[in-house]
Amino acid sequence: MNDKVFEPLDSGVVPRFAGMPTFMRLPVATPQDVDVALIGVPFDGGTTNRPGTRHGPREIRNQSSLTRRVHHVTGISPYDLVRVGDCGDTPINPLDLAASMESITRYYSGVRQAGAVPLTVGGDHLISLPILRGLVDKGPVGLIHFDAHSDTFDSFFGSRYNHATPFRRAVEEGLLDPKRTVQIGLRGAISDAANFDYAREHGIRLIFIEEFDERGAKDVMAEARAIVGDLPTYVSFDIDVLDPSIAPGTGTPEIGGITTREAQKMLRLLGGLDIVGADLVEVSPPFDPSGATALTAATIMFELLCVMAQSISDRKKKRN
Amino acid sequence: MNDKVFEPLDSGVVPRFAGMPTFMRLPVATPQDVDVALIGVPFDGGTTNRPGTRHGPREIRNQSSLTRRVHHVTGISPYDLVRVGDCGDTPINPLDLAASMESITRYYSGVRQAGAVPLTVGGDHLISLPILRGLVDKGPVGLIHFDAHSDTFDSFFGSRYNHATPFRRAVEEGLLDPKRTVQIGLRGAISDAANFDYAREHGIRLIFIEEFDERGAKDVMAEARAIVGDLPTYVSFDIDVLDPSIAPGTGTPEIGGITTREAQKMLRLLGGLDIVGADLVEVSPPFDPSGATALTAATIMFELLCVMAQSISDRKKKRN
Amino acid sequence: MNDKVFEPLDSGVVPRFAGMPTFMRLPVATPQDVDVALIGVPFDGGTTNRPGTRHGPREIRNQSSLTRRVHHVTGISPYDLVRVGDCGDTPINPLDLAASMESITRYYSGVRQAGAVPLTVGGDHLISLPILRGLVDKGPVGLIHFDAHSDTFDSFFGSRYNHATPFRRAVEEGLLDPKRTVQIGLRGAISDAANFDYAREHGIRLIFIEEFDERGAKDVMAEARAIVGDLPTYVSFDIDVLDPSIAPGTGTPEIGGITTREAQKMLRLLGGLDIVGADLVEVSPPFDPSGATALTAATIMFELLCVMAQSISDRKKKRN
Amino acid sequence: MNDKVFEPLDSGVVPRFAGMPTFMRLPVATPQDVDVALIGVPFDGGTTNRPGTRHGPREIRNQSSLTRRVHHVTGISPYDLVRVGDCGDTPINPLDLAASMESITRYYSGVRQAGAVPLTVGGDHLISLPILRGLVDKGPVGLIHFDAHSDTFDSFFGSRYNHATPFRRAVEEGLLDPKRTVQIGLRGAISDAANFDYAREHGIRLIFIEEFDERGAKDVMAEARAIVGDLPTYVSFDIDVLDPSIAPGTGTPEIGGITTREAQKMLRLLGGLDIVGADLVEVSPPFDPSGATALTAATIMFELLCVMAQSISDRKKKRN
Amino acid sequence: MNDKVFEPLDSGVVPRFAGMPTFMRLPVATPQDVDVALIGVPFDGGTTNRPGTRHGPREIRNQSSLTRRVHHVTGISPYDLVRVGDCGDTPINPLDLAASMESITRYYSGVRQAGAVPLTVGGDHLISLPILRGLVDKGPVGLIHFDAHSDTFDSFFGSRYNHATPFRRAVEEGLLDPKRTVQIGLRGAISDAANFDYAREHGIRLIFIEEFDERGAKDVMAEARAIVGDLPTYVSFDIDVLDPSIAPGTGTPEIGGITTREAQKMLRLLGGLDIVGADLVEVSPPFDPSGATALTAATIMFELLCVMAQSISDRKKKRN
Amino acid sequence: MNDKVFEPLDSGVVPRFAGMPTFMRLPVATPQDVDVALIGVPFDGGTTNRPGTRHGPREIRNQSSLTRRVHHVTGISPYDLVRVGDCGDTPINPLDLAASMESITRYYSGVRQAGAVPLTVGGDHLISLPILRGLVDKGPVGLIHFDAHSDTFDSFFGSRYNHATPFRRAVEEGLLDPKRTVQIGLRGAISDAANFDYAREHGIRLIFIEEFDERGAKDVMAEARAIVGDLPTYVSFDIDVLDPSIAPGTGTPEIGGITTREAQKMLRLLGGLDIVGADLVEVSPPFDPSGATALTAATIMFELLCVMAQSISDRKKKRN
Repeated sequence: MNDKVFEPLDSGVVPRFAGMPTFMRLPVATPQDVDVALIGVPFDGGTTNRPGTRHGPREIRNQSSLTRRVHHVTGISPYDLVRVGDCGDTPINPLDLAASMESITRYYSGVRQAGAVPLTVGGDHLISLPILRGLVDKGPVGLIHFDAHSDTFDSFFGSRYNHATPFRRAVEEGLLDPKRTVQIGLRGAISDAANFDYAREHGIRLIFIEEFDERGAKDVMAEARAIVGDLPTYVSFDIDVLDPSIAPGTGTPEIGGITTREAQKMLRLLGGLDIVGADLVEVSPPFDPSGATALTAATIMFELLCVMAQSISDRKKKRN
Repeated sequence: MNDKVFEPLDSGVVPRFAGMPTFMRLPVATPQDVDVALIGVPFDGGTTNRPGTRHGPREIRNQSSLTRRVHHVTGISPYDLVRVGDCGDTPINPLDLAASMESITRYYSGVRQAGAVPLTVGGDHLISLPILRGLVDKGPVGLIHFDAHSDTFDSFFGSRYNHATPFRRAVEEGLLDPKRTVQIGLRGAISDAANFDYAREHGIRLIFIEEFDERGAKDVMAEARAIVGDLPTYVSFDIDVLDPSIAPGTGTPEIGGITTREAQKMLRLLGGLDIVGADLVEVSPPFDPSGATALTAATIMFELLCVMAQSISDRKKKRN
Repeated sequence: MNDKVFEPLDSGVVPRFAGMPTFMRLPVATPQDVDVALIGVPFDGGTTNRPGTRHGPREIRNQSSLTRRVHHVTGISPYDLVRVGDCGDTPINPLDLAASMESITRYYSGVRQAGAVPLTVGGDHLISLPILRGLVDKGPVGLIHFDAHSDTFDSFFGSRYNHATPFRRAVEEGLLDPKRTVQIGLRGAISDAANFDYAREHGIRLIFIEEFDERGAKDVMAEARAIVGDLPTYVSFDIDVLDPSIAPGTGTPEIGGITTREAQKMLRLLGGLDIVGADLVEVSPPFDPSGATALTAATIMFELLCVMAQSISDRKKKRN
Repeated sequence: MNDKVFEPLDSGVVPRFAGMPTFMRLPVATPQDVDVALIGVPFDGGTTNRPGTRHGPREIRNQSSLTRRVHHVTGISPYDLVRVGDCGDTPINPLDLAASMESITRYYSGVRQAGAVPLTVGGDHLISLPILRGLVDKGPVGLIHFDAHSDTFDSFFGSRYNHATPFRRAVEEGLLDPKRTVQIGLRGAISDAANFDYAREHGIRLIFIEEFDERGAKDVMAEARAIVGDLPTYVSFDIDVLDPSIAPGTGTPEIGGITTREAQKMLRLLGGLDIVGADLVEVSPPFDPSGATALTAATIMFELLCVMAQSISDRKKKRN
Repeated sequence: MNDKVFEPLDSGVVPRFAGMPTFMRLPVATPQDVDVALIGVPFDGGTTNRPGTRHGPREIRNQSSLTRRVHHVTGISPYDLVRVGDCGDTPINPLDLAASMESITRYYSGVRQAGAVPLTVGGDHLISLPILRGLVDKGPVGLIHFDAHSDTFDSFFGSRYNHATPFRRAVEEGLLDPKRTVQIGLRGAISDAANFDYAREHGIRLIFIEEFDERGAKDVMAEARAIVGDLPTYVSFDIDVLDPSIAPGTGTPEIGGITTREAQKMLRLLGGLDIVGADLVEVSPPFDPSGATALTAATIMFELLCVMAQSISDRKKKRN
Repeated sequence: MNDKVFEPLDSGVVPRFAGMPTFMRLPVATPQDVDVALIGVPFDGGTTNRPGTRHGPREIRNQSSLTRRVHHVTGISPYDLVRVGDCGDTPINPLDLAASMESITRYYSGVRQAGAVPLTVGGDHLISLPILRGLVDKGPVGLIHFDAHSDTFDSFFGSRYNHATPFRRAVEEGLLDPKRTVQIGLRGAISDAANFDYAREHGIRLIFIEEFDERGAKDVMAEARAIVGDLPTYVSFDIDVLDPSIAPGTGTPEIGGITTREAQKMLRLLGGLDIVGADLVEVSPPFDPSGATALTAATIMFELLCVMAQSISDRKKKRN
């Protein structure tokens, strides 16, 4: 612990375009320094079609210069509640998937031991698996998962570890409780009618876009909260849950997605949950020349940070 | 008829970025081979402002590599119900509008004689006229027409054949029954207050975006289905019916359009109609550098293909 | 006054891509010639982050070639009701903020004296201040302000004149009546929880996107109309009120914005108000490579023009 | 003739980004007003592959805002020597090639009768034919032709009038003297070994890039000047003579082209010739998102203008 | 062998924008069908920084629609000399580097056994190694290698197989004779002063851009020809040997590269060598939004094809 | 002074796409820490046309991740010779030109007092003036200035401080010795024939592109070295000296520029001069969507760093 001030740079002193881009213009930190650790995992070795999410953390850092301090709905700044810093990128090896998964796992064990709650930026969705391996130590966690895809394939191209399989592996490995798992925003044609069978058979709640469209954000989130309950829960936000007109810079875009207004409504309804970590994945800057997807991602991160900070702060107070 | 398997390439064997891009990664075929013929008409000689739809079929083939086999709502694959193949592009002459219209007409006569139902990708909207000329032989068909524009001008620049006139010509030529025609999503300023007079006087039902916005997809489609009834019906989808934030790559974008979620809802309500053909037009790749419009178009094609396949399959069964 | 015909070029004679781009393809004019003066203010010296709105007027002129004559809902052309012309750009000095503000103010005094109602295209939002200084002579006006941001900061980087402060200055200078001011579409994190205090303390009505989302366009506009009443009212439309997926080309994009369908609904409900002027600001072409934002802006201008023309025409008739 | 000042706007008073873009920021004029008439021909109906040159004149006008008054090598301003103005675009019909050719021809007859020398911006290369038809009245002219392609095909897609045939037609019609014609910069594979036979048989001098590369700009231009001699000569500059890294925005790019330094050297060696007109063609803005090709074209125009102005001025003096 | 005609589609019948894009618009073929096999290897698993070359083959096919039949310098068409076809893409596994290398090797063994000479499009530069493994059976071949980088690292990120190591591995494995190897166009800072030691110690001739700049294409190629002599030689063209202004779409651009005019001169001087295969690698479409790099690559392929076809044809005649 | 290692991150451990982008992947430092201080000045308040160079430092940092350690011609790493670090951006005020100039001046006084030699990245060219004000304390320095423009205007828009005037002001203020000043690469039309008078009258040596083209890099640099001699010399590199095909991302592009091969040759001939500082200016990322200009700038920075490091190291040795 140290005396560092964990505040974003003052945009009335250092213009938003100046300086080196860290997440949210926060100081560089170690997990030991902070309550919430902003971490990049620049790895896309699990990608089966269009690559590029390895460039995600850098560009999201860049665009996060446009974020500000205080949430306009609550009037509260996460930086007033907890210490938040940019912990940099985890070690990875772009030529070795297995080694990368190990070093990611090791890094998140360290985060857990430091007592920080990680808010991660990918990278492709495979990274959720080594993150959970590093993070989960006392039995499976719940999951609120925003995505166009279920990511519960058994394998792809004969490989069990890729961005279509992380949550199946996580269930198999006892990291994830499928009965406390809900996936929201699913849509798009599938390669096989049986693609959702595993999820259904294990009790994962699948909320397709059609159901979401009928019920709306509030109702869906009430159910999601009931599913995960008060126990430790992970949040995973795949940027492709958003409509491709909003977030084109991703590897597997699916039309007919949710809007940012809907996404923000949902994220604000995460308040009070016991969030043990969150990630935002699948932003691919080479397919996002305008930076719009990365800017959206940075703002989604801020929404996640706000609910995480509130929850951590509340629990701290309760403990005291 | 032959032993060819009319299935998309398996994306777990041949990655989506590999191989030559055919529509939906399907085999190359002739209309004789298939029940549904996917056809390109790379012609934009009827365009009055921004050109480029001649490049539409190629880029939509390219982006259609991202589509999959099974519809996530019905759980049914069109490829299990009917034979579908990529029949390539019709002959056209980029320097001769009249010759192009003739060769398109001739091509679609062949499609009709082969007994295949065409699902066409343009090209500008003028192509609907020669398609209907080739396709319609037993009296006028009905039309469900998704578009920002009515395309029932009498002439433009003194020319009676361009992308603002196809449906007026089709009514005049007895190819289209105006009383069984409905246009959905109309909007945008017009050059003359009388622009919709022809359509109104001949009984075409005009559903502007404002009415659509009030009533919603379900209600509007119930009326549309009633209008066309059980008789043979053509479906024409101009990509500019979608909002330009979703489909920027088109020649005459109009803000305030429908979303893909709304479009998908409507297209899924075409089920059971006697669809004798469909087209998707006005995708202009030079104005679509990211490929987003073409990807949207490919997914719309898949939605159309699903309802067409179901309907053809049902009718086949009934006949047996 | 002269014999000039104040009509857009006929798009059936001069194609939309031909000729020099004026606003709406209208004749070049002076404020003396017209009832509604379309004016550019190519100034971005008040911008604190991403620059480029100095290029706004030119690109919006370019994209306005796609607009047409007659509103499709009312069936009325503004050009049938009043004289409208492109009065060019105001003088500005890109190296001198104070001098630019003075020359803008002087220009708008001239517009007022000529009896024309200005519809301005920026430029950054600071320009609203010198416009109001030139335009307002008989006591403060009301304001309907569409924006993601309140723009009522006291200062930024120690400067009292920049695109975050115009409306606070306008209230202080007696140009704007805060009790007859409503801001719609506000959202996005803020740098300080006190950012909205000035507005609230002075009676400006703040309608955040969350409230807008609950109530809808009609209800919100009913309140907005009640707030400004029958007295002289200015309308300011910051393009960043729209969602960045629709209008990416702006300096301070905020996700979760309003759609063009919502915006158009609201603008059409301005009818009958005593609009003394309007502006559309913050379009930054360097961040809008596709031109989509400028095309959207041009169409928003047309919507504003239609309500302004109707209102001016009605008042003229009443006076006669 | 009138009192108008034919000077570009002063860039120290009106910033380059302000105002409506005319060619070189010059006043709008008629051919009667000026010695050199800058004219746009926004027509691409002769294009056989990638369209879009119809948008050329507008975007070149836009980018020409970056040009200045005085040539840095000679220290002379063309605007001091002759009157130059922007005469707008010729009438064309985007749906009718024959009608467009007629109206272009008619327009250039008028230019000739007005005594102005035209400097035209296309449009595709077919436009050189109707320009020459309108311009040439006293026997065939010579031609210095910068291009990657010879454009002396007999026909394409069965059509004798397209952008691959203008100079063959011009020879056949007695507009062009093939013995006084030189083509510089030719390169790129051809569809048939016989493609250059017509040119060779009729005495057109073909200078391929390989010969140009060996000899250099000075030597080649000495020969070109000898070929056309003192008699009336037309200059045609197809932007695709430049390397595609410099001028990507064109329909038929060929790698291995000339650089702008080489082009400028050659153009400056046109001095003193009896240039009866010049054109710059094949700039296609939809394939030039950055505007680099249009900016290059505008600067090439300025180089052409300088030699034309000097030559006209010298001849005027001689006559006096 | 069969009766298929191995000619590109006639661009006067099927426009260049129409139809499915194969390499050079040639028929789809198997290695058994042809003398020269055009093959794609869509694999970028060996890439250490910016990915995307997996998309290379498809986009180069697309852009190769702009190539033509007959070389303009020799007046000879490769298609008149030998049979050439598009053999599609090799099998690869985007998630498994080792498996991909094996399947590539296996594929090229088949090509060798079929007696076809392969002209390959990558993919990243690692693919040269499995290609050589499959192709070389009777002792090491020579290599003419155009590249900014030597690609003779021992390892990167602890991995011996990646796009920085293929030619060291090839020497070690006896596939490549370092004394008959020449690398042309090398440049750019290096991570370690020892980076070129291996190449130098084993007798590879390194021609840096500075030497090339002094001596010119002819002189350098005379030496290169002397180095490889009459024995079997492979040609490898990394697109990054070209200047990034010409070929921006690549993962490791280095400024100060060779021009296309220089490249074409060099490639034409490969005539008569015993070329057993060639590849063109490192085109990354996600970093090439305009397609300029892919178009350049397609034209380079045509140059390679011309010298290969001539050489094969000459050897065939000699044997007869 | 401290124990920090002033080495770039090892690209075989931390991939180039990972981590926060500092210049050359170097540690963050203060001027006190280093021999060569890499500094950003994100200010474009002196820009008269297209803005955006305020974004230059960040994007050049980003692209500099692609640079490496050792110069391939000399085999020497600047990081082995001297300590180099990223000192961040100077304070500036985007709304106040005078205040920004003062804070830049103050910052560079500090750099001078710390004994570091600054290598600066702009920002627009005005920044050279406050840099020189801060840096020069013992009489005027010499200047080698690479630029398309002389930047010796007296004023623009009535302002004496903008990016067209810095070197005139520097001469007037006794910071620059005009007789020891040489400008290389000048070109492009000028607004007034007298534009170069000041420079000529004061003995500045102007080398236009035409002279450069005749004489070549070596000869020109021999003269440049003679002009500045052994006395303290500043180097200023305006990215627009390069051809716009290479460096499109700048505010005032001029065709016909120098190539990177020519630029690198010239920069390498700066060796041994007494360089007291250098800057690289006018990179405007909003006009450089591909990042090509910023990557070029980063590599130019590395070339400058190498000669500066060598020179500083040599002088240090001499002193010892």
